[in-house]
Amino acid sequence: MKSITRYLSFTIDKRMAFVNITPDVQSIVRESGIRDGLCLVNAMHITASVFINDDEPGLHADYEDWLEKLAPHDPSLYRHNRTGEDNGDAHHKRQIMGREVVVAITEGELDFGPWEQIFYGEFDGRRPKRALVKIIGE
Amino acid sequence: MKSITRYLSFTIDKRMAFVNITPDVQSIVRESGIRDGLCLVNAMHITASVFINDDEPGLHADYEDWLEKLAPHDPSLYRHNRTGEDNGDAHHKRQIMGREVVVAITEGELDFGPWEQIFYGEFDGRRPKRALVKIIGE
Amino acid sequence: MKSITRYLSFTIDKRMAFVNITPDVQSIVRESGIRDGLCLVNAMHITASVFINDDEPGLHADYEDWLEKLAPHDPSLYRHNRTGEDNGDAHHKRQIMGREVVVAITEGELDFGPWEQIFYGEFDGRRPKRALVKIIGE
Repeated sequence: MKSITRYLSFTIDKRMAFVNITPDVQSIVRESGIRDGLCLVNAMHITASVFINDDEPGLHADYEDWLEKLAPHDPSLYRHNRTGEDNGDAHHKRQIMGREVVVAITEGELDFGPWEQIFYGEFDGRRPKRALVKIIGE
Repeated sequence: MKSITRYLSFTIDKRMAFVNITPDVQSIVRESGIRDGLCLVNAMHITASVFINDDEPGLHADYEDWLEKLAPHDPSLYRHNRTGEDNGDAHHKRQIMGREVVVAITEGELDFGPWEQIFYGEFDGRRPKRALVKIIGE
Repeated sequence: MKSITRYLSFTIDKRMAFVNITPDVQSIVRESGIRDGLCLVNAMHITASVFINDDEPGLHADYEDWLEKLAPHDPSLYRHNRTGEDNGDAHHKRQIMGREVVVAITEGELDFGPWEQIFYGEFDGRRPKRALVKIIGE
């Protein structure tokens, strides 16, 4: 069994944003030399997500509005914010979008359908954050 | 390490539906000869899900109503549909239900609790779609 | 490839609750001797979740309110309950919070960001339930 572990870093200047990290993950797959295995990509922070969907700006704007409706930012709505935080909403938005993806590696590539792209989803930006990429296989 | 990779195909004649794919995944587990490992099952399309829940038609009807309430089909609600698509809702419904499941393989079988069944969830049907099954282990 | 499979048991005396299982998972990681690999933790019941977020009681109270708003308990709202169950809501809450997490094992430890903790989320308690922990690696 071979494995590789790498960390991606982000400092997003807005509270909420989506960043396409597919090229970063693809280079780690190639660096690993793994032809067949599983690739985990996860947010290391609990106010951020890693998810797979379409790289289309209209859709991302739709996601922002939808998540804001499902879990509005207004800090007065969350008991969590009594700890001094103002990011209660981000802990909820992240649960909708998910923490991680697991992607098959086949013949040395991410085994993707036609439109699959991997995104880092930030819900409490303006501070340094990380995502983890781990691949195991042969 | 052994591995197996297979693809399941679907053309669902409705916009939204849930298909029990547990028997298909079980045959791939047996074909693989893997006794101990991890099994990834994921939708390869970004308007579809793979998830685990109960095989009960009342629950599936409840899911359809609930997803329609959380992300209504009405194409005028989504900026994504300005690209010429009418499936903005499906990209949202899929985020609620998830892209993938990872299931333990123990003693050559899916290591499941009493009611766990794997479903392909379609939210923009009437066209050919695929799901991926990848197992690694020994 | 090495692997380990363990089961955690719960009987929660409330309908809904969140239990921090990070120490249990950490002991299984140490017992396994695996230095580098992937760790799957999943609920084995379809009215429960395993997820990663913050160990903060205010946030957990927020999650309970939010899930109750997104999928209220009222048994009359769900066709699933015509089967004699009263847990239709729990099957929906679990989809929001997710079934499983996959965590990287690096240098013999859960490779976590600063606040990541693993929770078992119960949505239909007062009966025995299980979660599965499976680690593969070397």
